[in-house]
Amino acid sequence: MTSALFILVYNEDMDKKISEKVINRLTLYHYILDDYEKKDIEFIASNQMASLLNIDDSQVRKDISILNNSGKGRVGYIVKELKKSIETTLGFAKTKNAFIIGAGNLGMALAKYDNFTNYGLNIVALFDNDDKKIGKTINNKLVLDIEKLPNLSKKSGVDIAILTVPREYAQIMADFLVQANIKYIWNFTPAVLSVPKDVQVWNENLMGNFLQFTYNI
Amino acid sequence: MTSALFILVYNEDMDKKISEKVINRLTLYHYILDDYEKKDIEFIASNQMASLLNIDDSQVRKDISILNNSGKGRVGYIVKELKKSIETTLGFAKTKNAFIIGAGNLGMALAKYDNFTNYGLNIVALFDNDDKKIGKTINNKLVLDIEKLPNLSKKSGVDIAILTVPREYAQIMADFLVQANIKYIWNFTPAVLSVPKDVQVWNENLMGNFLQFTYNI
Repeated sequence: MTSALFILVYNEDMDKKISEKVINRLTLYHYILDDYEKKDIEFIASNQMASLLNIDDSQVRKDISILNNSGKGRVGYIVKELKKSIETTLGFAKTKNAFIIGAGNLGMALAKYDNFTNYGLNIVALFDNDDKKIGKTINNKLVLDIEKLPNLSKKSGVDIAILTVPREYAQIMADFLVQANIKYIWNFTPAVLSVPKDVQVWNENLMGNFLQFTYNI
Repeated sequence: MTSALFILVYNEDMDKKISEKVINRLTLYHYILDDYEKKDIEFIASNQMASLLNIDDSQVRKDISILNNSGKGRVGYIVKELKKSIETTLGFAKTKNAFIIGAGNLGMALAKYDNFTNYGLNIVALFDNDDKKIGKTINNKLVLDIEKLPNLSKKSGVDIAILTVPREYAQIMADFLVQANIKYIWNFTPAVLSVPKDVQVWNENLMGNFLQFTYNI
């Protein structure tokens, strides 16, 4: 049992250091495994995942090796177990609650986005300042008056905000969120936000991603 | 002049090797510069950009050093010149035409996304199979019958598709796009697509990004 314990400790330590790229790939493996599970396929080989993602087989095996229980069998990985293991490692289990700020097309798209809940993200409500939108429901989530956010954030303890307002309101809204004790902002606007040091901003830099993608075209 | 020539050649060579992370950061600097330009601010210091992005000043200076003409002056960088230089280096100038597949909330949000055109991405049209959507315009772009895509792709030479259909149609639509000679798919669906080797897929893995962001919360 000593070696098993050692491996457990080792992996718990590793978890904290999993790089962004590995987290990203593990999520993509999870998409594939989810698809296989839906099709009732029991086993998967690393090279099947590698081929779908156009990456090296050795990369897939290396990524999977950091999981606690990869479900490795003689005829490949057991789909259900590998999927479960990725979920445990990436912490899908502990649900994170978030508000969406802005009930425009992007806010609505994210409120409806396939399987956010499966990946541990629970959208509690949307907020907007447009009377025509306030009171409506999108995917069973209420659109609330933005003025109600500070109070609701305090009562519910929700401190993650997904920012989807037009660019020209991005900083004003960021200031408002900071005042309301929001600590994490997932920023979908094409603006860089100025926030205090204790607030984290994650820039969903769509244009940067596109430029990376098309750089060599 | 020899040393100047050397630097020029060196930079042209570097351009081809700019890493994804650097491209991403350069885009974020560009957002900031664009904001400064709108506010008629003439100069910017590297530590102002570093502070807004919560990164090291040395990182900003290193990134900027790969640009051909950074607009470095005695009181900081000249906003207009640095902005222009990023545009030249990242190739904003050569416009890339793309189709959006799926005129749902996400497709519409991307069709309306602030300043895509400024960053060299021109959305030519959207495609859908819903009669209620076909014929409408979103941000001056027509929603066309998906059946018309193969012919239009052939005529116009557009070979980039932005995929925003529901997850369950992602693979079927990818197959259709491949048949229509689309060579680049920017995939916003939470599905891994199986495509031939000569087609490139860029996965906009929103869940992976969220998990990276919240991993240490």
